[in-house]
Formats: sequence, structure tokens, C-alpha cells
Amino acid sequence: MTDTDDIKWMRHALALARGVMNTTTPNPRVGCVIVRDGRILGEGATQPPGGPHAEICALRDAAVRGESVRDATLYVTLEPCSHFGRTPPCVDAVIAAQPARVVIAMGDPNPQVNGQGLARLQAAGISVITGVCTEESLEINAGFVARMSRGTPWVWVKMAASLDGRSALHNGVSQWITGEDARADGHAWRARSCIVLTGMGTLLKDNPRLNVRSVSTTRPPRRAIIDGRFEVPENALLFDSAHVDGVETLIFTAQPDAASSGKAARLAQRNVRVIALPSAVADRVDLPAMMHWLGRHEINEVHVEAGAGLGGALVSAGCVDELLVYLAPVLLGDAAGMLKLPMIEHLDSARRFAFTDVARVGADLRLRARDAARWQALHHAIMSQKA
Amino acid sequence: MTDTDDIKWMRHALALARGVMNTTTPNPRVGCVIVRDGRILGEGATQPPGGPHAEICALRDAAVRGESVRDATLYVTLEPCSHFGRTPPCVDAVIAAQPARVVIAMGDPNPQVNGQGLARLQAAGISVITGVCTEESLEINAGFVARMSRGTPWVWVKMAASLDGRSALHNGVSQWITGEDARADGHAWRARSCIVLTGMGTLLKDNPRLNVRSVSTTRPPRRAIIDGRFEVPENALLFDSAHVDGVETLIFTAQPDAASSGKAARLAQRNVRVIALPSAVADRVDLPAMMHWLGRHEINEVHVEAGAGLGGALVSAGCVDELLVYLAPVLLGDAAGMLKLPMIEHLDSARRFAFTDVARVGADLRLRARDAARWQALHHAIMSQKA
Repeated sequence: MTDTDDIKWMRHALALARGVMNTTTPNPRVGCVIVRDGRILGEGATQPPGGPHAEICALRDAAVRGESVRDATLYVTLEPCSHFGRTPPCVDAVIAAQPARVVIAMGDPNPQVNGQGLARLQAAGISVITGVCTEESLEINAGFVARMSRGTPWVWVKMAASLDGRSALHNGVSQWITGEDARADGHAWRARSCIVLTGMGTLLKDNPRLNVRSVSTTRPPRRAIIDGRFEVPENALLFDSAHVDGVETLIFTAQPDAASSGKAARLAQRNVRVIALPSAVADRVDLPAMMHWLGRHEINEVHVEAGAGLGGALVSAGCVDELLVYLAPVLLGDAAGMLKLPMIEHLDSARRFAFTDVARVGADLRLRARDAARWQALHHAIMSQKA
Repeated sequence: MTDTDDIKWMRHALALARGVMNTTTPNPRVGCVIVRDGRILGEGATQPPGGPHAEICALRDAAVRGESVRDATLYVTLEPCSHFGRTPPCVDAVIAAQPARVVIAMGDPNPQVNGQGLARLQAAGISVITGVCTEESLEINAGFVARMSRGTPWVWVKMAASLDGRSALHNGVSQWITGEDARADGHAWRARSCIVLTGMGTLLKDNPRLNVRSVSTTRPPRRAIIDGRFEVPENALLFDSAHVDGVETLIFTAQPDAASSGKAARLAQRNVRVIALPSAVADRVDLPAMMHWLGRHEINEVHVEAGAGLGGALVSAGCVDELLVYLAPVLLGDAAGMLKLPMIEHLDSARRFAFTDVARVGADLRLRARDAARWQALHHAIMSQKA
């Protein structure tokens, strides 16, 4: 049973989750609100790793307000955890507080939870409702669900292009096709991601810092370079970003001895880690293997900001879940395309996505399109536990 | 003075104008509603050429309802005409009906009206308000205003493209990149236009009928082909469309003797007119001269549905006011671009438009972008007459 009040309060909890978009990784972004008779008793959202989860924050908030949550309804955007992680299981605290009902947006795909939180609540005599605003909750935690369910992060490729689909002039000039607002919006996507990834083409052409600007964040994402031949210049600007934001830079390479080189040792002093992945093709990083490596290392979301070469290679390798395209209302004519992809002979062979949202950002448009089958797979991962 | 009631009723009049989108050409689409004390006394919209204009329809509607419009407010989306055209001046009928107020969305750019309708109303002691919902009214009549103010039609280029800006595969395959809904929407744009224009590349490749389907309309647009060398095959499918919808097909060519040829005489039997325009470049139709020809022949709106070659040539010749792009959420990779345009060296040289509206059409997006300076020029043409 889902009534309009349940949806209203779950949306409130979702808004709380969106408020911690940039800070919970590798944990999911979760919001929680506890309500009785249309009145908020307590609310909260997941704190940075090691800190309390959303349910605990909401329960503590209610305590601070002097409210008992007994017989109240607790709305939470993700199934309460039932395992000891960095913190004790939330489900115990929820049960102890004795709410009458718990309303959950989506199941936790974490194999250590996976319906057990829900079962524990029901066993304690609490009425449990699931599937309220599931799609919206999944939007917030696609990366966490992807990592838990398939072992790899949710990957989007950010691009800026002209209305005629060009990303750079023939002479390489690409700064800036889109306006300041679009670039700032792009930084918000960097900020929410776990890692910002680029290739050697962009590194050598633009010498990017790959840090978050235009948006203030307390948890800067890591950086990664795909550098098959391990030829990154040691004076690349992005290595300086670590001095500013303190986060690690990863270099993925196909050179087996790269990690033990003197260059790697020098870079290690600057918080740079070199990862040599076995590769079937000389000098080419195995992109799916890299995504699995990232998944194993608790990376939920990858923000790719690369040229047409690496972008196309990631699409071709099946590593892209979503396209994030900033479209400027200009025509660039005979210039470089957005993604280097092979020729196809039939329209049926085209790689198909589904538009999800369109927004105006300054004079530009932001289009999001994602792989519909993969999105369905995420849905499947969170819906396998039914109340 | 503009109050919210004025805006509300003008929007009602605009909706009436939108109801005659496909049938008034070469006259503007105009709506009119007469109101007293919040009650509609009469309403109407411009009838097909030779029939009554919106004001007359609304006055007659009031008469049929047995309502006097004396002291009422008359809302009309375009300044009432003050000249004898196919019908007598509307302004006389309005004055005779003695409304207290006339509220006008925009001035008539027709040099035969151009503020005189407004002046006549004021001279008759009627209170006149202008500039209510001007932008919305201009949206409906951009073509009429363009023709009246600059002598050429308002021209949009309709394109279907993939998210990576490709309009056809390397082997020419382009049917269909977008879905059925987008194609039907494209037919609605054909239906509102005065003429549907294509080039020989598209004609030879797709052999299009260039008529309106998916949308029912009582006033089918004409068709035009740009055929510099006058080499169109006489069995092209679009020549059969005249049997179905009865409208003329124009062929613009650069061959001086084309119009007097036997081929032209044979085509004339099938409602085809050959227009040879003088050209500085052999075999190339002078595109700006063609637009002036169309303007002189009462064409308000041109719907271009062509390949990247002609589309690019029109943009380069400064003949394009608006882009109408249907974007499919697919990646086509190494394939043909949307518009053949020359290389540029600096981003500042890019042809810049402004996004106006974005709509989801089935699985696709429809993006509209127009030349902001030209739009401003239209505004100037209708705002020169101040109340």
C-alpha cells in the first residue's frame, strides 16, 4: 500500500539524501525522516564514512528534540543495513526505537544486507512497505547499486559539443564550446563522482588539473589517467592537484614493470599510484579490467572527461552506462566528432541509449542518456527483496 | 498598463490563433476574443485567404450570440488591418462596434498597416493597449513578420540526427534515425510551412514525396527543389504528390534556358513551375536570391528538409533562421555529419544560435535553436508602432 503521504515523506527523505550527494562514498547516499501525525519527529542523512547512517542520524535528531518515535513511521531511501561495517547495524537501532511502520524506497543490493534488514524489521513486528519512489532513490545511488550488483562502477562520459555534434575544431581548439554555467554544472558532476578519469590525449592537449572547481565540496574525487605506455610527463598539472585537495591520483597502464619503476616511485611521493593491468593488446589498458579494479576498490561512480578517442574506446568496450552531454547552440562545421566509434552498416547496429533528463544550463542544454538495459539490471538488483 | 486579466485573455486569443496555424497563409494567424466582465461575448480566428479576419469572426460570433460588444474589451493578437486587401479593413468594423478597449499583442509589420490601424482606433476614442504577449504572438507569425519586414521568409532547417551529431551512415542509410513520433511531429512542421524545400541529393537518394502525412491539413504546403543543373528525373515521386494534394511544385535552377525547355513544358502539365534564377556561379542556385523570390511570392515560412550539403549551403549563405533538430538517443559513430560547413580556426567564428524550446517526442528530443539577432530584428519590426 502506497498512499500520497508516503510518497510525500519519501520525497522529503530523498531530498535529504541529495543533500549528502558528495560526501558518503563509498557508502550510498541515504536520507531518513521519522513522522507521526504529519509532524517530523527527526530527520537525517548518511554522514561521511565512519559516521552514522541516515537512520541513526534521524533517531538521534528525534532524541535531541525530545520526541519518542514509538508507533511513528520511519521513511528511509534504502533498506536499513543489517551487518557490522564501519558502524553497527542500523536495523537494530530502528527495532529498538519501535516505530509502527518502516517505509523503504529500495532494497540494499549489498550481499551482506540483501533483504535481511527488511526481514529483521518484519520479524520484530514492524510493518514494512517497500518500493516507494524506487526510481528516484536509484537515481541517487546508481553507482553503489552497480558496484554491489555487478562489481563495476556506474560510468558516465561527460562531453561538451556543438549542436552539430562536434567537440573540437580541426586544430584541436575546444576551450570553450559551452558556457560558464555548463562548465560549473560539469564540476558538480565531478564532485559527486568517486573518480574523474581522463586519457593521455586530453592530458597532453589540455594539461587539465582534473580537480573540482566552481563547486565547494569536502570530499574531492580521486583522479585517474589511462596511460597505456606510461608516458605521462611528471610535470603534468594534475599531479599538483594532490597538494591542494589531498586525494590520490591513479595511473592505469599496460606496462607490466611500470609500477616498480623509478618514475612510479617519484610519483608515489606525490600521492600517485601506478596500476599495471595485464593486457591482451600491447600498450592498451584493458578497460573492462580497469572497471573491475575500480569496483573492487570501492569506486561507485566514474566521471569520464576525455577526448573522442578514449570516450569512443570506452563505449566500444561496453564500459559506458550514461552519456552526459552539454550541447551548445553553435555550429562548428568540419571539426572533430564527439566519440571515435567504428563505422556501422545498419541503423540497427547503432548503440542505443534512452534520454533521461534535459535541462537548460545557461545558454546550453544538458542532455543525459543512459543504457536502458543496464538501468533495468540495477532495478532488478534492488527489487529482488520483496516485503 | 497590462494586468493579469489582459494576459489571460490574450493567451486565449493566442490559442485561437494557434488553431489556424496551417490555413491562413499568406495571411498571418490571428486570434481575437471579445470580453466584458470576465465573460466571452465572441471569439474567432483568421479564416483561409479571402475569408474574414479574426476580428470580423469574433464580431460576427458576438452578433450570433446576440451580444453587443459596446464598451467591451477586444483582444487581438495582431494590430487590426487598416487597408483594403482581399477583405475590407478590420479596423472599420472594430470602430463601428464601439468597444471601450482594444488590446493588441503586436503591431502589424505590413507597410500598408504599420501603426495606422492603431492610430485609427485611438482617433475613434478607443483605449488601445499594445505589447501584451508580444513574444508569443511573434512565435506564431515569425514568417509573416519576416516577409513583411525584410522581404524574405522565415526559414528553418529540419534535421534528424543521432546524439553524436550524425545524420546518415557512411553508406547513406538514414531511414530512420528517429522514431515514428518524431517523424509525425516533423510533418506538423511541414504542414504549418508555406513550402517544403529539398535538394537534388535528397531527391535522388530518398525520392521523397514531400507531402504532409501523419497530420491532417486542408492547406497543403507547396514543394520546391533546388536543382542547379535542372537534372531532376521526370519520374521523381514528388511530382505525383500534386495529383494527391493539388499544390504546385517549384524547381529553382541556375540553367537560364530551363524554363523554356520541353522538359519544363511537360512538367508544367503536372503543376510544376521552373524558375531559372541568374547565378554568379555556374550550376549553383543563388540561394539568397531564391529566398527573395519566395518572399515576393508570398511565402512566409520555408521548411527545409535536405541533406548535409544543401543544409550547410543554406547556413553558409545566411539563409537559415532556425534549426529544428530531432535528436535520437543513439550513437552512429563514423558517419555523415548534420551540415556540411567549412572548417573554422577559432571558436569565435562559429555560427551561434539560441535554444528556444526543447521537447521530448517519443524516445527522441526536439531541439529548436534560432538566430537571436534576426529574432530581435523581427521584434523591432513589430514594435516600431507604439500606442
